[in-house]
Amino acid sequence: MTRAAMTPEKDAEYRAALNTALEAGSKVLREGGSSLDAVQAAITVLENDPHFNAGRGAVFTYNGTNELDAAIMDGKTRAAGAIAGVTHTKNPILLARAVMEKSPHVFLSGAGAEEFAREQGVEQVDPDWFATPERWRQLQELKAKKLGWFDVDLKYGTVGAVAVDGEGHVAAGTSTGGLTGKRWGRIGDSPLIGAGTYADDRACAVSATGAGEFFIREGVAHEICARMRFTGENAQKAADTVIAEVGALGGDGGVIVVTPKGEAVFSFSTPGMYRARANSKGLHEVAIFKDEALAKH
Amino acid sequence: MTRAAMTPEKDAEYRAALNTALEAGSKVLREGGSSLDAVQAAITVLENDPHFNAGRGAVFTYNGTNELDAAIMDGKTRAAGAIAGVTHTKNPILLARAVMEKSPHVFLSGAGAEEFAREQGVEQVDPDWFATPERWRQLQELKAKKLGWFDVDLKYGTVGAVAVDGEGHVAAGTSTGGLTGKRWGRIGDSPLIGAGTYADDRACAVSATGAGEFFIREGVAHEICARMRFTGENAQKAADTVIAEVGALGGDGGVIVVTPKGEAVFSFSTPGMYRARANSKGLHEVAIFKDEALAKH
Repeated sequence: MTRAAMTPEKDAEYRAALNTALEAGSKVLREGGSSLDAVQAAITVLENDPHFNAGRGAVFTYNGTNELDAAIMDGKTRAAGAIAGVTHTKNPILLARAVMEKSPHVFLSGAGAEEFAREQGVEQVDPDWFATPERWRQLQELKAKKLGWFDVDLKYGTVGAVAVDGEGHVAAGTSTGGLTGKRWGRIGDSPLIGAGTYADDRACAVSATGAGEFFIREGVAHEICARMRFTGENAQKAADTVIAEVGALGGDGGVIVVTPKGEAVFSFSTPGMYRARANSKGLHEVAIFKDEALAKH
Repeated sequence: MTRAAMTPEKDAEYRAALNTALEAGSKVLREGGSSLDAVQAAITVLENDPHFNAGRGAVFTYNGTNELDAAIMDGKTRAAGAIAGVTHTKNPILLARAVMEKSPHVFLSGAGAEEFAREQGVEQVDPDWFATPERWRQLQELKAKKLGWFDVDLKYGTVGAVAVDGEGHVAAGTSTGGLTGKRWGRIGDSPLIGAGTYADDRACAVSATGAGEFFIREGVAHEICARMRFTGENAQKAADTVIAEVGALGGDGGVIVVTPKGEAVFSFSTPGMYRARANSKGLHEVAIFKDEALAKH
């Protein structure tokens, strides 16, 4: 994700998509909705947009399928829902929400998760819905070049959102197709509560993207919350420290973080991270590259 | 798990099984082996013993199958491996170890995980290997009585081990069949790095058992390590605090914890927890009930 690799057209498309998702979440909050609903609204937009590696436009597994993971968490109650390896659920974030609210469990997987989805009336689609030519091309490129597992350009694109509402409750959600060419039923950090997704009103809400295996070993999202709770670090310092620790383990990536007081920060070690933020005082920013200040849209 | 519900014969069988597992792990350490190998040795014994809810003797899912989860983590490198929903792998802890050492991933699931197991030569068995009449009876009882999802007597029995070796490196492992009557591809805390299993030489190694959904939301194993690292609490205080927090969320269960300095502690909120500990100075203890001091065996 560098300026050199991005055409002006693509750049504009991504910024427009980010803006649409940001507005979907903002609208919920403007109308007095919860942070949980705002997170869900933003992620649903990103899942439906083929530019991102989640829902439609998800990367392909080694076997040529799209297998989707997602999680959502409510900082007020620390209730959480997550799913892994679903292949027919149009919006995995909606299924994660249903797991949180309609099942006694936190984490469902595979065919069983979709049996639950059908019982709950969560929209199912033909697997072709998720497939795009660009992602197919990326899988063929990966196989042809024998690229490494954590090659940045082909493999990230996980989507996430964090929000705080008028009552000071935070929420986090994450949705992804995982790594291009993933095999053996691999589950990354995105749907793992505490790794790629965590929300706790005592500290913050976090959603992560990157080389998931390193994020799991660090326990990134929970670690950022723990640092804030126990050391008194602010969100930026905690996020920067944890992303540096992931780097020390060997992994790249980034996080978005919001606190109950309304601080919204980013930290990432990649050349860029699609990102955006807004608040009720008129802030409305979208950015892609590392060397780019968040610009008014 | 109360004295009233336990016959003298069953009591003796469980204590003998715990003793055998404890000795298997101790032997590795006596001979200069690593904490990782000691954890694996102890858990393999418990998986092969039909008394426990892991490997042979695992509980049945709602659909009448045995679906196994496991994780292992090395505190020295924070390398980790985990698997969920396997149905043919004799010793899930050995597959978790293979994921850690032979794959680029941390967490594999379902049929894909067993494809990887076969590639790596991890022993596969007919699913009948895991099934026992007593667990089948428990599933029928659950269905007949419409028991709650987190009924203690029928549902726990997850096995775990933590160890510290002569070099001061800690390791943790956990293996389970999950909850009796689990549905929809439910994954509990056991295989989730940071929830049911975590190891970090900077703090401790933790393995958990209990109402997994609450352990996931708390991030139990990572939270105990974080408290030790950031607040300076000792292992007992950190473990007790976190088990109390799980209780406040609504969940029961327990943890075993070991530190690089050789402290080995337990904390649990259930009437009993099968447990044992040993060290190189001659300590060798086995216990079951809450009101029971750890007794020399």
